[in-house]
Amino acid sequence: MNIRISKNKFYEALQIVSRAIAPNSPVPALSGIKIEAYTNELVITGSDADISIKMVLSNETEPELNLSVIEEGSVVIDYRYLNEIVRKIDSEEVQIEIIDGTLTRFSGGKAEFKINGFRASDYPTIDFSVPSNHFTIKCHKLSEIIEETAFAVNSKDTRVILTGVNMKCDGSVLVCTATDSYRLAKKTINTECEPFGITVVAKTLNMARNIFGSSDSEVEISQNDKKIVFSEGGIIMQSRLLDGTFPETERLIPTEFSRELVINRRSLISALDRSSFIKTDNMAIIRCQINGNEVLLTNKSQEIGEAHEELVAESYTGEPLDISFSGTYVEDAAKALSSDNIRIKFTGEMKPFILVNDGEDTSLLQLVLPVRTYN
Amino acid sequence: MNIRISKNKFYEALQIVSRAIAPNSPVPALSGIKIEAYTNELVITGSDADISIKMVLSNETEPELNLSVIEEGSVVIDYRYLNEIVRKIDSEEVQIEIIDGTLTRFSGGKAEFKINGFRASDYPTIDFSVPSNHFTIKCHKLSEIIEETAFAVNSKDTRVILTGVNMKCDGSVLVCTATDSYRLAKKTINTECEPFGITVVAKTLNMARNIFGSSDSEVEISQNDKKIVFSEGGIIMQSRLLDGTFPETERLIPTEFSRELVINRRSLISALDRSSFIKTDNMAIIRCQINGNEVLLTNKSQEIGEAHEELVAESYTGEPLDISFSGTYVEDAAKALSSDNIRIKFTGEMKPFILVNDGEDTSLLQLVLPVRTYN
Repeated sequence: MNIRISKNKFYEALQIVSRAIAPNSPVPALSGIKIEAYTNELVITGSDADISIKMVLSNETEPELNLSVIEEGSVVIDYRYLNEIVRKIDSEEVQIEIIDGTLTRFSGGKAEFKINGFRASDYPTIDFSVPSNHFTIKCHKLSEIIEETAFAVNSKDTRVILTGVNMKCDGSVLVCTATDSYRLAKKTINTECEPFGITVVAKTLNMARNIFGSSDSEVEISQNDKKIVFSEGGIIMQSRLLDGTFPETERLIPTEFSRELVINRRSLISALDRSSFIKTDNMAIIRCQINGNEVLLTNKSQEIGEAHEELVAESYTGEPLDISFSGTYVEDAAKALSSDNIRIKFTGEMKPFILVNDGEDTSLLQLVLPVRTYN
Repeated sequence: MNIRISKNKFYEALQIVSRAIAPNSPVPALSGIKIEAYTNELVITGSDADISIKMVLSNETEPELNLSVIEEGSVVIDYRYLNEIVRKIDSEEVQIEIIDGTLTRFSGGKAEFKINGFRASDYPTIDFSVPSNHFTIKCHKLSEIIEETAFAVNSKDTRVILTGVNMKCDGSVLVCTATDSYRLAKKTINTECEPFGITVVAKTLNMARNIFGSSDSEVEISQNDKKIVFSEGGIIMQSRLLDGTFPETERLIPTEFSRELVINRRSLISALDRSSFIKTDNMAIIRCQINGNEVLLTNKSQEIGEAHEELVAESYTGEPLDISFSGTYVEDAAKALSSDNIRIKFTGEMKPFILVNDGEDTSLLQLVLPVRTYN
């Protein structure tokens, strides 16, 4: 292998595939990035065995790449050294040449590095085939769905299936649900696709959000019962799915309500943020008393002290309410919503309540369970 | 106690005194900031028993403070809660009032917090008296001295005296020396003061650099055999000194040289930075071969590979040289210097060498010991 490539473009690509790499992998070759040079393209791959990212780099799709393949070939180089060398090289282009077995020379400017790599044949075989069942979605829309749901997964390892976001499609409607069994986020969008139901670990989704960002281009999402594949431009990112059955959550979501609060979203977030620093057993339990348009939030701890916030609601219908909840959960839910005012619908003091945007857009629902207190 | 004060100005001051606080202090009151309100001023104090910072806040020196003391008094409040409350309060002014014993109310806007504090009498007594022996120096000059020397202290706890910078004054010349016994930084400045010799832990100096910054105002430095005190504006920062005798380092610094290299400082730093990623036993050992104006830097590791940098010197006098050293140490030394080109003076392959600015300013000297290699 002997290639020349734009230093900056190559470094950008390395940054993307490096995301999939878990340092200190038990498979030594997986701490490396696989570099494969073909006549007209360079393929780089990073993987932690669960999540894999492949990028196909060619002058056709990226003219600034200035790729010239002098000799085809392949090698695997530790991702830390590779990133550090390419970042620090002080020239427009970097030349990468295998000089002896896996000893690879990187040169640019007056600097030259020789790094011992691994043989590409020592790198695990990764099946990058794309399942036929797929739909497409704008990158920014994908990021939005992930932002609105993935925070609500179970961050502890107690019930593995709950560490993922469930994606269920009946052919025309895609429902994305995340829950840790104390709260739930559900996003519904229209999309055409064969019916499917999969659960994708939140880590994968957050990585996809970082990689595909908020651009207006389309990302193709394919899946079968083993994996999900995201493809856009030259990037293919895939991840295995979570095994197990995602709980039926639909019946937990109340549909009739006795009380409804409309409140400014920003004011609620600020008030919860200020009062949540007082924690009991690592949890900020906020007591919320609503009477007419007056909303009083308090957080008391015998040891530390007390926070006290008064808010005025846009409107409130129903009997006065005295309910307690995790301040962080309601703050997260309010942050995932987007309208100026939000609607919070209650059925009772010990029943789950839901938060939705005020207005026409009912695609996103956030649910929170109250906390029992003995104040 | 009952006061009103500008939220922003108070928050800025809290940030400064908080630097001295060590979280999880064995003395509970030391996790707090002492607040004392007098007729015309507010005094706040933070301390970890070794380093203490006191700030005197008054409308006279800071009109934007808008301090109004409604009732004198004092209390100690946990610095985390105090910082978090004052940062998040959403109003121009914050009111702080003791309402019951040590229960203190903070209010601003629609928010109100009540925090359990400590009695000021439970706070350790800190002697803030200022020793008579002192000199003054511009803040930016103090920062410069610290930047040029403090990095060279021993960062391990093996020889405690070497974790500090030695400051020795003969009445007209102040010499600041730091060493970890493999390298040494020495800065000499003219200043008028009674003779003294003290060793100040690098942590204190780096904190002073952060607090007094690079402004043009004068900071007064006072010391006796127990402590050093920095005063500027309303800020008094003091620290206990390191016990023990700082080694005599003067005789270790060679004064006659057989070879002298003049080289561009930035190019040397970049080349060392690039090649230092290859580490053997956690140390980047750079071999430097000089022949005429050609400077070749190499760093080899059997396991990882090899880095190779070619530089052209501005000038070189003396026999060819083949010397090895810690890349990080020479890079640190070159960074502490400031001229475009620097002079590196050698006496032999296993003898300490020194780095100085090229030009008239000889106030700063950096010394590095070579490393023996078996290449």
